[in-house]
Amino acid sequence: MPTKIKLAICQLKVVSTKDENLAKAEEMITKAAQARAKYIILPEMFNCPYSTDYLNSYAENIPGGKTYQFLAQQAKEHSIYLIGGSIPEAVSTEVGEKCYNTSLVFAPNGEELGRHRKVHLFDVDLEDGPTHLESAKFAAGDQVTVVKTEDLQLGLAICYDIRFPEFMRLMVDQGAEVIILPAAFNTTTGPAHWQLLLQSRAVDNQVFTVGASPARNEGADYEVYGHSMVVDPWARILAEAGSEEELLICEIDLTKVKDIRRQLPLLKHRRSDLYQINTP
Amino acid sequence: MPTKIKLAICQLKVVSTKDENLAKAEEMITKAAQARAKYIILPEMFNCPYSTDYLNSYAENIPGGKTYQFLAQQAKEHSIYLIGGSIPEAVSTEVGEKCYNTSLVFAPNGEELGRHRKVHLFDVDLEDGPTHLESAKFAAGDQVTVVKTEDLQLGLAICYDIRFPEFMRLMVDQGAEVIILPAAFNTTTGPAHWQLLLQSRAVDNQVFTVGASPARNEGADYEVYGHSMVVDPWARILAEAGSEEELLICEIDLTKVKDIRRQLPLLKHRRSDLYQINTP
Repeated sequence: MPTKIKLAICQLKVVSTKDENLAKAEEMITKAAQARAKYIILPEMFNCPYSTDYLNSYAENIPGGKTYQFLAQQAKEHSIYLIGGSIPEAVSTEVGEKCYNTSLVFAPNGEELGRHRKVHLFDVDLEDGPTHLESAKFAAGDQVTVVKTEDLQLGLAICYDIRFPEFMRLMVDQGAEVIILPAAFNTTTGPAHWQLLLQSRAVDNQVFTVGASPARNEGADYEVYGHSMVVDPWARILAEAGSEEELLICEIDLTKVKDIRRQLPLLKHRRSDLYQINTP
Repeated sequence: MPTKIKLAICQLKVVSTKDENLAKAEEMITKAAQARAKYIILPEMFNCPYSTDYLNSYAENIPGGKTYQFLAQQAKEHSIYLIGGSIPEAVSTEVGEKCYNTSLVFAPNGEELGRHRKVHLFDVDLEDGPTHLESAKFAAGDQVTVVKTEDLQLGLAICYDIRFPEFMRLMVDQGAEVIILPAAFNTTTGPAHWQLLLQSRAVDNQVFTVGASPARNEGADYEVYGHSMVVDPWARILAEAGSEEELLICEIDLTKVKDIRRQLPLLKHRRSDLYQINTP
């Protein structure tokens, strides 16, 4: 089993036309596959502007919607693992139409391997930044998602999910060695916390963390930070994008997970006699 | 109740004579009190070199030992809250004499307010750094420590304890607004993780974190990193020492804790329906 894995993050700039977003994703996925990336990762809400105006008209059924089919076909065509960032998934709730914020993972044969619905909704009122009330439009997922591939186990979370260390731990206790985080931090929280959170979860859990953001969209309601990033289990930044559209390619060596865990056995040193994270 | 609190960290250089260490601590505490610091903090193992050669002969009984009396007297003399870094506390175990690594907190009237015994022992074998087996010489504590003063609630942890996010959460759920961490990161883990961990625990828990290290001791068996630091709940570094002996003074504004928690209600957004940290 190879321990060196080539990843690519497509830090695409999301525009207001779904078809244009899919076309851009296809272009970047093709380039990444040509560069022999085996795991290709799209950002959060890559097919739809991150604005409540668009959600309902862009939402799709899963499985079966246009973007679902696009992702399955791309994975198969290029024979890659495709982590499809996230898209709005249509759902009917007691209080009317809402969406899940859903990430889909496809195998090189085009079959869906797993999906994650964002668990923590971003309801904030920042002094020097945006007010944002996701729960008005989104429904929350309720699952921890770890996807097994032929090479490794991927923990999958979306954006705000990373702020909750307990949630990350549950993924790691289920075997995650690489945590993939499609995300869209904004220009307030991004400079303050994006790198810090990716490094912190990597070091605490001794895993790789991969943050995949859209490119900066200056002038939009919600301005995205960019800076997609790959961090190793010792908190080293292996690759980082700027704020513009960019294909970020990075090789990770999975032996580092075991190696760091042997040198500094943090996970074994937890005092389970004093605390445990339980799932009620 | 005042919300602005002046802290001082005495980043003293630990030498091999206990009395010299106490004399240096007294000198720095006096300066800090003259500068009107109300909370004065000493580093981990401030009275004893961080080497197994010294532990047993330097260990004291608590209460009653020389350093215990020194700290009580200093707190009273200067009418300050004194967080006495940590010292080796003598303890008899089933396998012979060991020590606790113990932090003591004294009130301005000279009375002990609380103590913390290091819970997580540092047993590591770093590739580019030291091998260290604390459990051979130390016994581990088994308590979460939060100390209430007239101004605030202090969470108290020692060095390696900070690497365990569950443990920090328990302090915060018991009311900690400021986490004090006497510590002695080394010159491998210090540059890699010291600032990251202090910032990460501050941001996740929306508290102030205060790391108090001894000064660099070049040539010692275990070289200490220094860089004592105060971090606010948004991860801003309010003050940072270099590697040499230094008195670091910093004012914190406790209203920031409530303010940040209102803007970004992380603690409320935890999904207790999906995970809870339990104490068995």
